Amino acid sequence: MLVVMEKDATKEQIDSVITAIENRGYTARPIPGGDRTAIGVLRNKGAVDASVFLGLPGVKDVVPVTKAYKLVSREVQKEDTVIRVGDVLIGNGHMVMIAGPCAIESETQALTIAGHVKKAGAHMFRGGAFKPRTSPYSFQGLGEEGLKILAKVRQETGLPVITEVMDMETFDLVEEYADIIQIGTRNMQNFSLLRRAGKARKPVCLKRGMAATIDEWLMAAEYIMEGGNSEVILCERGVRTFVNHSRNTLDISAVPVVRKESHLPIIIDPSHAAGRRDQVIPLSRASTAVGAHGLMVEVHHEPDKAMSDGAQSLYPEQFAGLCVQVRAISDLFKGDEGF
Amino acid sequence: MLVVMEKDATKEQIDSVITAIENRGYTARPIPGGDRTAIGVLRNKGAVDASVFLGLPGVKDVVPVTKAYKLVSREVQKEDTVIRVGDVLIGNGHMVMIAGPCAIESETQALTIAGHVKKAGAHMFRGGAFKPRTSPYSFQGLGEEGLKILAKVRQETGLPVITEVMDMETFDLVEEYADIIQIGTRNMQNFSLLRRAGKARKPVCLKRGMAATIDEWLMAAEYIMEGGNSEVILCERGVRTFVNHSRNTLDISAVPVVRKESHLPIIIDPSHAAGRRDQVIPLSRASTAVGAHGLMVEVHHEPDKAMSDGAQSLYPEQFAGLCVQVRAISDLFKGDEGF
Amino acid sequence: MLVVMEKDATKEQIDSVITAIENRGYTARPIPGGDRTAIGVLRNKGAVDASVFLGLPGVKDVVPVTKAYKLVSREVQKEDTVIRVGDVLIGNGHMVMIAGPCAIESETQALTIAGHVKKAGAHMFRGGAFKPRTSPYSFQGLGEEGLKILAKVRQETGLPVITEVMDMETFDLVEEYADIIQIGTRNMQNFSLLRRAGKARKPVCLKRGMAATIDEWLMAAEYIMEGGNSEVILCERGVRTFVNHSRNTLDISAVPVVRKESHLPIIIDPSHAAGRRDQVIPLSRASTAVGAHGLMVEVHHEPDKAMSDGAQSLYPEQFAGLCVQVRAISDLFKGDEGF
Amino acid sequence: MLVVMEKDATKEQIDSVITAIENRGYTARPIPGGDRTAIGVLRNKGAVDASVFLGLPGVKDVVPVTKAYKLVSREVQKEDTVIRVGDVLIGNGHMVMIAGPCAIESETQALTIAGHVKKAGAHMFRGGAFKPRTSPYSFQGLGEEGLKILAKVRQETGLPVITEVMDMETFDLVEEYADIIQIGTRNMQNFSLLRRAGKARKPVCLKRGMAATIDEWLMAAEYIMEGGNSEVILCERGVRTFVNHSRNTLDISAVPVVRKESHLPIIIDPSHAAGRRDQVIPLSRASTAVGAHGLMVEVHHEPDKAMSDGAQSLYPEQFAGLCVQVRAISDLFKGDEGF
Repeated sequence: MLVVMEKDATKEQIDSVITAIENRGYTARPIPGGDRTAIGVLRNKGAVDASVFLGLPGVKDVVPVTKAYKLVSREVQKEDTVIRVGDVLIGNGHMVMIAGPCAIESETQALTIAGHVKKAGAHMFRGGAFKPRTSPYSFQGLGEEGLKILAKVRQETGLPVITEVMDMETFDLVEEYADIIQIGTRNMQNFSLLRRAGKARKPVCLKRGMAATIDEWLMAAEYIMEGGNSEVILCERGVRTFVNHSRNTLDISAVPVVRKESHLPIIIDPSHAAGRRDQVIPLSRASTAVGAHGLMVEVHHEPDKAMSDGAQSLYPEQFAGLCVQVRAISDLFKGDEGF
Repeated sequence: MLVVMEKDATKEQIDSVITAIENRGYTARPIPGGDRTAIGVLRNKGAVDASVFLGLPGVKDVVPVTKAYKLVSREVQKEDTVIRVGDVLIGNGHMVMIAGPCAIESETQALTIAGHVKKAGAHMFRGGAFKPRTSPYSFQGLGEEGLKILAKVRQETGLPVITEVMDMETFDLVEEYADIIQIGTRNMQNFSLLRRAGKARKPVCLKRGMAATIDEWLMAAEYIMEGGNSEVILCERGVRTFVNHSRNTLDISAVPVVRKESHLPIIIDPSHAAGRRDQVIPLSRASTAVGAHGLMVEVHHEPDKAMSDGAQSLYPEQFAGLCVQVRAISDLFKGDEGF
Repeated sequence: MLVVMEKDATKEQIDSVITAIENRGYTARPIPGGDRTAIGVLRNKGAVDASVFLGLPGVKDVVPVTKAYKLVSREVQKEDTVIRVGDVLIGNGHMVMIAGPCAIESETQALTIAGHVKKAGAHMFRGGAFKPRTSPYSFQGLGEEGLKILAKVRQETGLPVITEVMDMETFDLVEEYADIIQIGTRNMQNFSLLRRAGKARKPVCLKRGMAATIDEWLMAAEYIMEGGNSEVILCERGVRTFVNHSRNTLDISAVPVVRKESHLPIIIDPSHAAGRRDQVIPLSRASTAVGAHGLMVEVHHEPDKAMSDGAQSLYPEQFAGLCVQVRAISDLFKGDEGF
Repeated sequence: MLVVMEKDATKEQIDSVITAIENRGYTARPIPGGDRTAIGVLRNKGAVDASVFLGLPGVKDVVPVTKAYKLVSREVQKEDTVIRVGDVLIGNGHMVMIAGPCAIESETQALTIAGHVKKAGAHMFRGGAFKPRTSPYSFQGLGEEGLKILAKVRQETGLPVITEVMDMETFDLVEEYADIIQIGTRNMQNFSLLRRAGKARKPVCLKRGMAATIDEWLMAAEYIMEGGNSEVILCERGVRTFVNHSRNTLDISAVPVVRKESHLPIIIDPSHAAGRRDQVIPLSRASTAVGAHGLMVEVHHEPDKAMSDGAQSLYPEQFAGLCVQVRAISDLFKGDEGF
């Protein structure tokens, strides 16, 4: 439930509504909006009696929230969330290009690729320092050494960096170095990690689980927002189906559904969806046209030597071509979301 | 295997290669190309000895075909197939818009909708006269009466028409009235129907089965081509997965895969993929950007009264908006397939 | 809706209820039961007014049917359907073993295998004369020659035979030779074929489509029953999922669901579910224990030479072992369905 | 690769092989067997030269391991792993019944249910103290209080207890109280948690991820074994598919595949697979017949009041009936694995 305050409600009125909510055993969460404040009523079991709050001073309305998720819901916040990372804006019509290798392998590798993708027009750099790997015997990433290389890339190129966090032990470290903290598909329902991300001071990019429904995905984002971090970016990366011509099946319809249900930005990772280089550019074009707020693309200057995911990494010149196409399509939408 | 003839090979040389192939118990199928003829060797069991044909007069080369499908394969025909229906071209950069109701319900309904979609820029009209329905108690279509209405629509508007054939009994009838014969998702592996379509004198639009791999789909097209009909259009319409926010999951990556593997045109039906009106326009934009050769969209002027699939039908004004968007995106590609 | 007659209702009373139903534009279908008759009201659009029938002489009750399917529903017929084929009973606690090769290849092959499976305890013989094949270039079955071999097998061994029908053109022929007519997974929603099966004078074994829900499967059976043939056997054969260690994923829970929703017998084909010989025996044991009414298993004495599906065919001695295990498990249930 | 020692190899010989392996930069892991020791060669990149080890004293053979997983592989250990928990044996023909509520709600609830399931024949008690929940607003379990109740149950009934661990923060606590530590489906690829489980002094029950292949599942078990804990029990609990009549689709063929590929015990959780009470008993029978080493079943004496998963919990008397059926089926196998 959402208690919507009058435009001119005083801080005292807001505080006394919060007190009234908490006196009934619920959790109150104020959500400042453009011109008025709303207060979410969380952790209720069963229905809440609206009449209790309707009579309080400064209360304009009480709105039921019909979805299981609340803070992520467009019912609770009508305007698109826009997240600022340095000079980069994510959400509401801005089209952000994030590119880089699957894993950070060395300073030379990272700086070389970063130089290429910046020149092509990327706004952010991606690269894994801690890598989730199916096999305990595979390369697991450079760890803190990789994070330091990311910091070097940011310093040299000015590009903000995004990198994955895998567990609580290394969360502080990743939070220190990253501009955006990524939670991977295998951890989408690692609820302890989500709660920790709710306390983070950096935006979180939450990838969809490979067999997650959109409701489950939004509920995972709700864990982060409920913890106090309202800067969540959703990332669709394909789901697991019977289809065998791509590694996963990119669920392009997730974009209109998420944009209808939630105010959070949604980006697409075509590289992990495809698992093959030759599908990445067409999927990127489709992702732009369907209305995603950004793309996260794997690029490597020597994909045959890459320590992971080489087969799906674009060559730098392919990425440059992709950027031209994506800009052309996204320019068609400029200033006219509904086209 | 493919026997490639010299550019100046004579008809006698071609005939004697055909005879040599058939003498070995195989089937020969000549495939006329832009500037030379190739001859497919079909129905071989196991490997064919290339050397037998390499020495014949007029033979330039013998090329193994590595896929299970042959006639549909780009290995066998390098250039895109372009299909002409009246003034409409389908394939190789042409973007065809097909629109109309799920089912033909009456002459008034069909003519009203046809007027709307023609004005918006549709090139063809769609509408079912024979409807495959999950329940025997549901509306099964108007039958021949529906076909006659389609003929009336073509006469009044000049739009060619596409309609579904469900069985052998009504095939002659549908073939007589339709400009393109559609084979539905539930009949993709109705092999008797595919063989009959191979004898048809009209192009065939073959929808992907809801759990078919691309290999199975191309093999179904191979049945039609093997029967003698080389005018096949593939139509992706979503596959069945665990995802529950759309009726099916549109497998957008099918487009680059089919375009790489086959020379046949591929279009997309976003209406059946989505099953909900509010996803149709975003999916149509994505389908255009990914490189499909056309769209088939359900439109109804009174969707609440539609006898089937009303919930996924666009209003005429929505379809008009969609056409503007699709043209804008496809214009970006004009004359530059690789963008 | 179902009009339930009194136990001692006369034929005249039943007829006048039928007339009353048909006068309102519906279709009436009498369903004789153990001790009373019920009359199904079909093809109604929207709700039917029960009061009209409640007042008629001989009417005991009017029961709404809440499922989309009617004739197949346990709401309409409480007792299990039992189908008799020669001396073989299928349904309600009888456990039928059907075995034989994927395809009939020759008289010697068929008789050899039939001798093996009969000795092991099979009740019926299976074998394809018309084979649905993904590729037009694969072996398509012996056709009528295969049917004649099946007749020979029946004559020599006394085993009734089941074989697949693929289309209308060959339906009469298959109906003439087969004791049970099989409709394959790819034809589960070939509605014209289902209607024809509704007119057949032989029982029909309807395989589940590889991506069909149980509702869709029961609706397909409804097409057959609505056409007038009440002898339908359902056959689960695995569904298509992301799982790659078996060809399909056997959906074992289909058995309790079908047995709850429908009175029709349900058998399982573990061979097509597995696609690998080494899973067939465990899946057969599970299928027996879950409560299936029978098994259809592929057996070949020379699987390495089989013209199709050799890799999933059991050796005759493996089938003999399987029969022992299946009997042991099914004996545990004898006379105590609930165990 | 696996270095197999002679039966009478001395400790010195074994140690010098280990040294030889480690001198080459690999990790050596001795695997004591019934009558001889084998030594796994881990963390090799690329092929290992067998000849180096073949000449060493006491070495009988060098065997390549063809799978990505090693320690879990039956290639590496031929005999079934049997895990002892108190008097309970899991693996190799022993059929273990684990039962209890989804979540521990109170001491009274837990002791009541434990009394029922012990009387019915359960060997172990299950119950969640830390609950992974899709929503942050749902009941998250009693935490340590729940663990103390589990200890009380063990003390009162003598039943060992199994309970889920969700994160590193609470791992020590869970390890202290639990007899078997469960890792849930959402954490199957939480690699940090798997590594921690590899250091645990208690057996680990690893549930299959809801979209995991068997290879991925075995690789997750490999993480635990590679960490040093060889007591891993695999638990199949259904996978996510398009099927909508059960919450998940129980992949029964996982049992023969796992038993062929690995020496680890595999049990089945029919309750989470079904998500509905009325499928649990049939699925349990099938799970027993297919060859699982045990069942984990949800039971609640007041399912309508359960704080989670009530709809799939059996009543105590249903569980008693289930135990009778399971014993009858598993008795058929006794002493004859191949039946």
